[in-house]
Amino acid sequence: MPVVSTTELSRRRQDILEGARRCFAEHGYEGATVRRLEEATGKSRGAIFHHFQDKENLFLALAREDAATMADVVAQEGLVEVMRELLSHPERHGWFATRLEIATLLRTDASFRERWRQHQAVLDQAVHDRLTRNAEQGRMRTDVPVDVLQTYLETVMDGLLTRLASDRPTDGLHAVLDLVEDSVRAQN
Amino acid sequence: MPVVSTTELSRRRQDILEGARRCFAEHGYEGATVRRLEEATGKSRGAIFHHFQDKENLFLALAREDAATMADVVAQEGLVEVMRELLSHPERHGWFATRLEIATLLRTDASFRERWRQHQAVLDQAVHDRLTRNAEQGRMRTDVPVDVLQTYLETVMDGLLTRLASDRPTDGLHAVLDLVEDSVRAQN
Repeated sequence: MPVVSTTELSRRRQDILEGARRCFAEHGYEGATVRRLEEATGKSRGAIFHHFQDKENLFLALAREDAATMADVVAQEGLVEVMRELLSHPERHGWFATRLEIATLLRTDASFRERWRQHQAVLDQAVHDRLTRNAEQGRMRTDVPVDVLQTYLETVMDGLLTRLASDRPTDGLHAVLDLVEDSVRAQN
Repeated sequence: MPVVSTTELSRRRQDILEGARRCFAEHGYEGATVRRLEEATGKSRGAIFHHFQDKENLFLALAREDAATMADVVAQEGLVEVMRELLSHPERHGWFATRLEIATLLRTDASFRERWRQHQAVLDQAVHDRLTRNAEQGRMRTDVPVDVLQTYLETVMDGLLTRLASDRPTDGLHAVLDLVEDSVRAQN
């Protein structure tokens, strides 16, 4: 039996994630069959599910990667900057579409919803921390509770993802984000 | 051959629409099979497709009903009021979810996208007219072009629909809408 190093295992895991992301982006969550996942990753179903147990886990691992990346940007520059970056990556629109596709799953499958929430928690926390810090430093309006501002920004982000996922024109969306940024800022 | 009155035909058409809406809400766009549509409407596939040609047409007819209803509210009270009404109808969240589910279709099927756009045109026009009128009457901020304000409101609405469709908590969303309304208003 061959001995596989931790580095090699980690590399294989990453290869599967990257192939799977392309596959979900192209075919959607439902359309990403096991056979298509095998083709896209160049790995057997045995290898894929050795690392990720099932398709749901594989998808949630990708969602967690996204959440962690976004949380880093939020900590440095805020959620509006995350939205600006989303706007600059039209090649990822197919992947965004899977987030919409799983709405039914989120609504009807309590266990999936709970796991999804856990995977998003790092991002929620980063947004909350950033807004609280901004409020303390007088950079944000104070006539509206921080929680409402957070829900507002997250709602705009959901809307942005929805527009990008369905490939609607992005004209004017940068100006929309300027307006959004301005609407949470402290007015002097 | 029985003679069927126009009223009767129109009533049957409406029965099919109502049953189909429940069916799409419960099973999603893909999950609403012909057999389930038959069960939900109490009509044969022959009868259903006599009125609506195919599932896509049936779905677009429902989307057009929505767009027309919303356009009426927009003309009287604006898009934020439409959003407030969406918030008050949790029983319709399943139906909203189909709007997200079709994102892949909108992105990958140019003919569907074009037809969807035509069906939404009445709503787009109503929002544009309302905003233009508000701007002329000095009720709206003028430092941001009307088109950008329209895209802003539509993005928030997409975000709201996404949250409702996945049954995320709606706490704070009324306060979010107050903020949105305030951010397009003329500042005195």
